[in-house]
Amino acid sequence: MKAPIDFYFDFSSPYGYLAAEKIEPFAARHGRGVAWRPMLLGAAFKLTGGKPLTEWPLKSDYAKKDMVRSARFYDVPFKLPAPFPVGTVSACRAFYGTPKDKQVALAKALYRAYFVDGVNIGETENVLKLAGKVDLNDQAIKDRTKAEVEAAIGKGVFGSPYFIIDGEPFWGIDRFEQMERWLGRPF
Amino acid sequence: MKAPIDFYFDFSSPYGYLAAEKIEPFAARHGRGVAWRPMLLGAAFKLTGGKPLTEWPLKSDYAKKDMVRSARFYDVPFKLPAPFPVGTVSACRAFYGTPKDKQVALAKALYRAYFVDGVNIGETENVLKLAGKVDLNDQAIKDRTKAEVEAAIGKGVFGSPYFIIDGEPFWGIDRFEQMERWLGRPF
Repeated sequence: MKAPIDFYFDFSSPYGYLAAEKIEPFAARHGRGVAWRPMLLGAAFKLTGGKPLTEWPLKSDYAKKDMVRSARFYDVPFKLPAPFPVGTVSACRAFYGTPKDKQVALAKALYRAYFVDGVNIGETENVLKLAGKVDLNDQAIKDRTKAEVEAAIGKGVFGSPYFIIDGEPFWGIDRFEQMERWLGRPF
Repeated sequence: MKAPIDFYFDFSSPYGYLAAEKIEPFAARHGRGVAWRPMLLGAAFKLTGGKPLTEWPLKSDYAKKDMVRSARFYDVPFKLPAPFPVGTVSACRAFYGTPKDKQVALAKALYRAYFVDGVNIGETENVLKLAGKVDLNDQAIKDRTKAEVEAAIGKGVFGSPYFIIDGEPFWGIDRFEQMERWLGRPF
């Protein structure tokens, strides 16, 4: 069995959401699984000096248009939520505090709540409505989340979505084309 | 005849170079011409707070890898030059000071000099070796260049390559996929 595709994302990332809707059938076509690895883009931005797409003059107008068009391109339901972006510490902790066999379903539910139904998943109570019984103040869960975010940054993850295939990094849903070819034969 | 594809780029942009090698057959397949519009990314960065890809912590390592891999993906010869990036005011003025029927050949020659042969096109004398007789201190040429750069920014151009098709903006060589579909039928 080949190694799974590492899929890094932030729960407030529109392109991360689009990727979440597409990555599983994509990986399966190539005989791969997917390791879902939510992280906190804010922690990476502290290192890189980056900031959310909608906070750049000029770029923000384009970004909003491109998010909506990209959703149509990939045939995924999408509505840019307000507020945007939101903090995703609670969502991230809920993921890592959830049993492994329920994490992927939770990730998709969180993303759809935010980008389809406009639920503010920056608010802990909204996260808990989807995650059910998980103690977000549990120290072990907080430590686990912190360790996962640090590990992601240690791997060089600075954006969302970010994929690593057998050690090769690909940033952005617009690298699916290159990933497709790479999975057939590295070039 | 349908309107040409507006193709904005900076002469120091690796992805702009890759696009320059690909845009003409791409446009021709869709019965379109190409309006080549070099601009100065530095002027846009002043507005957006952006900076060259290689100057972001974390992102820079990825960017260097991605440039080289993308060149292989698009089957275009490429070698990341040093120094990188370079100022492109002289290159941009040379383009706008050259007769229209020779501009595209000059643009390709400047790009290949920099990204294939490692010639520093930030230096005026190297630009003039390729551009031949053009007075880069001519006030009309300087004014024309300034006006073109301002017009680009006025259209919202903040990155390179940046395309506008019938009013619809596309940023990045990784938007060729969406442009391809858009040219068939806007979605």
